[in-house]
Parts: sequence; structure tokens; C-alpha cells
Amino acid sequence: MKEKRTEISELGEFELIERLSEGFKIKNEATIKGIGDDAAVYAIGDNYLLISSDMLLEGVHFDLSYVPLQHLGYKAIAVNVSDIAAMNGTPQQITVNLGLSNRFSVEAVEAIYEGVKAACDEYKVDLVGGDTTSSHSGLVISVTVLGTVEKKMITYRNGAFENDILCATGDLGAAYMGLQVLEREKQEFMANPEMQPQLEKYTYIAGRQLRPKARMDIIHELRDLNVKPTSMIDVSDGLASDTLHICRQSNLGVAIHEDKLPIDKQTDETAAEFSINPGLCALNGGEDYELLFTISQPDFDKIKNHADIHTIGYMQAASRGKSYVTVNQNAVELKAQGWKHF
Amino acid sequence: MKEKRTEISELGEFELIERLSEGFKIKNEATIKGIGDDAAVYAIGDNYLLISSDMLLEGVHFDLSYVPLQHLGYKAIAVNVSDIAAMNGTPQQITVNLGLSNRFSVEAVEAIYEGVKAACDEYKVDLVGGDTTSSHSGLVISVTVLGTVEKKMITYRNGAFENDILCATGDLGAAYMGLQVLEREKQEFMANPEMQPQLEKYTYIAGRQLRPKARMDIIHELRDLNVKPTSMIDVSDGLASDTLHICRQSNLGVAIHEDKLPIDKQTDETAAEFSINPGLCALNGGEDYELLFTISQPDFDKIKNHADIHTIGYMQAASRGKSYVTVNQNAVELKAQGWKHF
Repeated sequence: MKEKRTEISELGEFELIERLSEGFKIKNEATIKGIGDDAAVYAIGDNYLLISSDMLLEGVHFDLSYVPLQHLGYKAIAVNVSDIAAMNGTPQQITVNLGLSNRFSVEAVEAIYEGVKAACDEYKVDLVGGDTTSSHSGLVISVTVLGTVEKKMITYRNGAFENDILCATGDLGAAYMGLQVLEREKQEFMANPEMQPQLEKYTYIAGRQLRPKARMDIIHELRDLNVKPTSMIDVSDGLASDTLHICRQSNLGVAIHEDKLPIDKQTDETAAEFSINPGLCALNGGEDYELLFTISQPDFDKIKNHADIHTIGYMQAASRGKSYVTVNQNAVELKAQGWKHF
Repeated sequence: MKEKRTEISELGEFELIERLSEGFKIKNEATIKGIGDDAAVYAIGDNYLLISSDMLLEGVHFDLSYVPLQHLGYKAIAVNVSDIAAMNGTPQQITVNLGLSNRFSVEAVEAIYEGVKAACDEYKVDLVGGDTTSSHSGLVISVTVLGTVEKKMITYRNGAFENDILCATGDLGAAYMGLQVLEREKQEFMANPEMQPQLEKYTYIAGRQLRPKARMDIIHELRDLNVKPTSMIDVSDGLASDTLHICRQSNLGVAIHEDKLPIDKQTDETAAEFSINPGLCALNGGEDYELLFTISQPDFDKIKNHADIHTIGYMQAASRGKSYVTVNQNAVELKAQGWKHF
């Protein structure tokens, strides 16, 4: 490479993927959707097959000094299942590829697989394959998940309409604050290895970071309530970044209201302790793996009493912009400052 | 891990995977086959869906000092397509997960994707997804491929019968000899960086190592010839190891004849230069990505004039053992000494 050298960080992940996938044309009729949503879509009879794939690397996506191997195995599956949920689908099968350096024993790999198994049991997916190989540098986990969804039930990122209501499940920002606490404990432990970790106060947010759940429960409940979201995504990069995906693909603006954001008490208190605005944790923290979706106004009555679905804003014409309305009614532009892995 | 520590090398890859997958039960009716063949199998209407996944790690599976990035991208796809071919299927879609350290520029990633695209075009598969993330150490490529096959046309490893004829396509051992030449050139270059690589004499075998093809052509030709193999596998670990998979899963013995092995002239000459028995290259070298399959005796006439399909032995009762019959008619036990990545 004596010629031009462009750093990946100059582009960022999304633009890089866009650039890389440019030259590829769809060749098989059955391929409905390639790159650009939570999962790829493939037509089979009355159903769509969903395919999603994610890779977790040690030192980039997890730090084994505080991530237990069981939790890591569980999380690797849950985050992939979450992508199937975001298409309104049901996960069915997974493959797991592991790269292991020689500091990992058989017992360590078994611990990872305990977590994989717990997740497979919880989400009712079959482990059907994968590769186990050595790695010269740390642990690599790459998971692919297959799922299905009835054709008419699929939800893309691009289906939202003006005046649709924006909803988020569960609570947001906890995984990010959990990470801050775990990182602080690690620093303190390194400074003073005699000290015991003080995590009792933070069990909820630490758990949200270490062992996030895929919200398949919500997918089933939405079906029971006869609600089909007009668009959906899971919150992996942060509420701001993920809302902007819906906006861009649906060609719309949005208004999110800070006072509507679902933030757990522990997140709120810990954010105060760290002098961080809890709304910013929700907007930019990421890794919550909650569902973010839009519904049409007539569906509002069906979900308004659901304890775990929160209306946080609404979609508006693109010309009206993408705004974040703070508690004191200042509207600021919504910007993605999600995690950058580059 | 203060307790028992078992090294992964004590078990080996196959036993490790067996042990890890023990506790997993199949939960979805549609899951026909999980771990244990070239691809997992999932029923959809009249067809089976095939899923296979492989991970390539820098320093373990490839050495970028002599592997061009385009070829690497191509190979990552081809080896996965080869797994679909080994099930007698047609590949349809792939996902590619890339882990990249910061020594890789956008241009380098584009080079990898050039190879990915060439393979997608050649094998008519759609790139439908994947993740691009940073890695602290080297390049990681994890590919998952989906394919389909008519239910009645699927070939497993366990379908061979006594007296079936064992066939191999193309030629064997070339990829291994190619690797030896590339490694030697690397050593010589490190000792004397002024020297230009001398690879003219070795273009065929180097190409077999750097840019192996998946034998989809053979799959189509077998269909045209109306031959359905009774069992099939692709030669990734080496003829010995891969034949033993068929034996174990079909509960049979085998006799392979050294004088029948298809070995290219360049492989033969280079093996002589390195003082290696060319038959052993074929048996234990691996990475040929040719197809190894069994056919029933009545099908022999249909394939006997095919220039690229070679009959190399036959299946026999398990009680008669697994033997390799050398040119001077010594029968020795067939043993797997394929590549170990642990």
C-alpha cells in the first residue's frame, strides 16, 4: 500500500460498510433485503427468513477482567437474538465461531458455553454449528442467528410515518452506567488489589451491561396486543444513533422528549454520582438492547397501559428536523455520539 | 479458574466441539441436523436450508506477508461455499464479519472486499450482512453462508454403504505443497530482503493455497449425470481425516489406494524437491477444498469418463478396517494427521 491510505476512523463504521457494499448486486430472487437493517431477509414460502451476524472481540467489546465467561457467552447470543426481535421475528438457530488463545482452558470454554446454553434455552434457539479455532490474541466470538417472521409481520427501519409515536421498552442508559462502574472498580482494584469490589449498590446496572436480555417478551406481547410496529430497531449504539437510523431510512424527522425517557432509579443515582446527565446516558450510551419502535396513533390505546413500553416522542416531517426536547423545553438537534469501535 | 485446568490441545478440535455441544437439545422441529456435518440443516417446505460458518484468523489461518488481501477475501468465501457444495447444495447468501486492527486502511479493506465480490460473483451468492469492527490484534474474518438443497438430494457424511466407490475431484496435496513453497520464500526473503520471490515454477500450487475454488462445477455436473453421492465431504483437513469422518459417521471401513491418488505434476515435483512423499501431502496436507464422495457401484459408469473425478478406493465393512494401500501393495492403517490449529 504505497498509494493512498485512508484511515478507517475517517469514515466510521456505517460509511465504511456502505462503501464496501456498493459494488454488490443482489443475484438471487429470494434475497429481499441485504445490508442496511437489523437482519437480512430471505423469502421462503409464506415466511421470511432473517439472518444476522455479530462479532465480539476481547479488549474491544469486552474486558475479561470483569466480564464472567458465562455472561459473555449469554450476551453473545442475546445481542444476536435482539436483532431478530428488531425485525419482529422469532429466532430459531445459531452458529457460534470461537477463536481462543492458549490461555483458555477447556473449562473456560465450557464456561462460555454454559452461558450460550442458558441463552439458547431462554430464547428457544438451536445451536447448530460453528467452528472452534486457536487465536494468537485473545478471545473472539462470532455468532450468526437465523430467525423467521410471517411476511406481513416484518418490521423494517424504513416503515415509519409522520405522526407515528416513538416507543422504547424497558429503561435506557443503565448498561452504560454499569460499564462506568465496572471500569471504575477495575481501576481501583488495579491500584489496590487487596480491595474487594463494591458492587452491591450497582447490581442492576452492572447486570444490564454484563447480561443484557433480548426483548422477545415484548415481541410476543405486541402480537397479543395486535400491534404491528411501523418500524423497529434495537438500541445497540444508543437511542440517538438508533433513532436517526429510523429517521434516515423512513425519510422523517423526530422529536424526543427528555422528560419521557425511561431511566431507572439506579441509573439516575449513579449518573449523579459520576456527574453525568442521565438523559445523555440514554441517548449515547448504547448496549441497552431494548426495542425502539414506532406505532401509528390508532394503536396508542393498545399499548398505553403496558408497564414496560414507554412513548418517548413522535415522528415528524423531515423538514421539521430531528430534535431532542430537554426538560426545560429547549429543543436541541439530535446527534449520534454512540460508541465508536474505531 | 483455580480448579482443574485441561488444555484444549489435550482434546483436539473435534472432541472439544463434541464435548461443548453435549448438553444442547434440539428445540425447533425444523432443525434437521445440528453440529456434525459440513453444514447444519433446516427444513423449509420442499427444501432444506443449509448453514455453515467458518472463522479465519491472522497468524493462525493465514500469513499476510505472502497472502494478498484480495485472495484472502476470495478464499474466505470459497471455503464456506465448499461446505454447501459438500451437502450437494447451492449457496445463496453470505454474511461477512471483519475484525480489523488500525494498521488496516480503508484501501486494505476494499482489497479484501474485491476478493469477496469476485467470489460472490463466481458462486452467485448475495452478500447480505455483517459487521465491521476494530480488533486489537490482526485481522479476523468470520463468514456464514446459507444455501439450499432439494430434500431428496441432500448428502450427509453418514450415507455411505459397503462396496460404495470412494471418489475425489481435482487433485490433492497441491495446497499443502504451495504452502511449503510460500513459507520457504518468506524465510528467504527475511534473510535477504533484496531477493525477488521465485515463484514462477510454482504458480499452480501457490494458487491452490492462496485462492482455492469451491467445486460447485462438480455439483452441477453430478446433477447432469444423474448421480447422487451416497455421502460427501469437502477436503479441508486432509484426505485421511476427511475420509475417516465418512467412515465414522457411516460406520464403515475403507481402502484407499495410493496409486489412484490424483496428484498434479507440480505437486509431485515439488514434493520430490522437499523430500516429501506426495501421497502423504494428499493424505495429511488439507486445504484442497476438493470434494470427496462415495457413489454406489451402478453409478460408476456415469462418472468413469469424467476427467476431473477420480476413483481412489472403496468402502468396506468396519470389521475390515481403514487402510491405505501403498504402491508396493502394503496396507497400512489410515490415520488422521491433518492440520491441528491447536
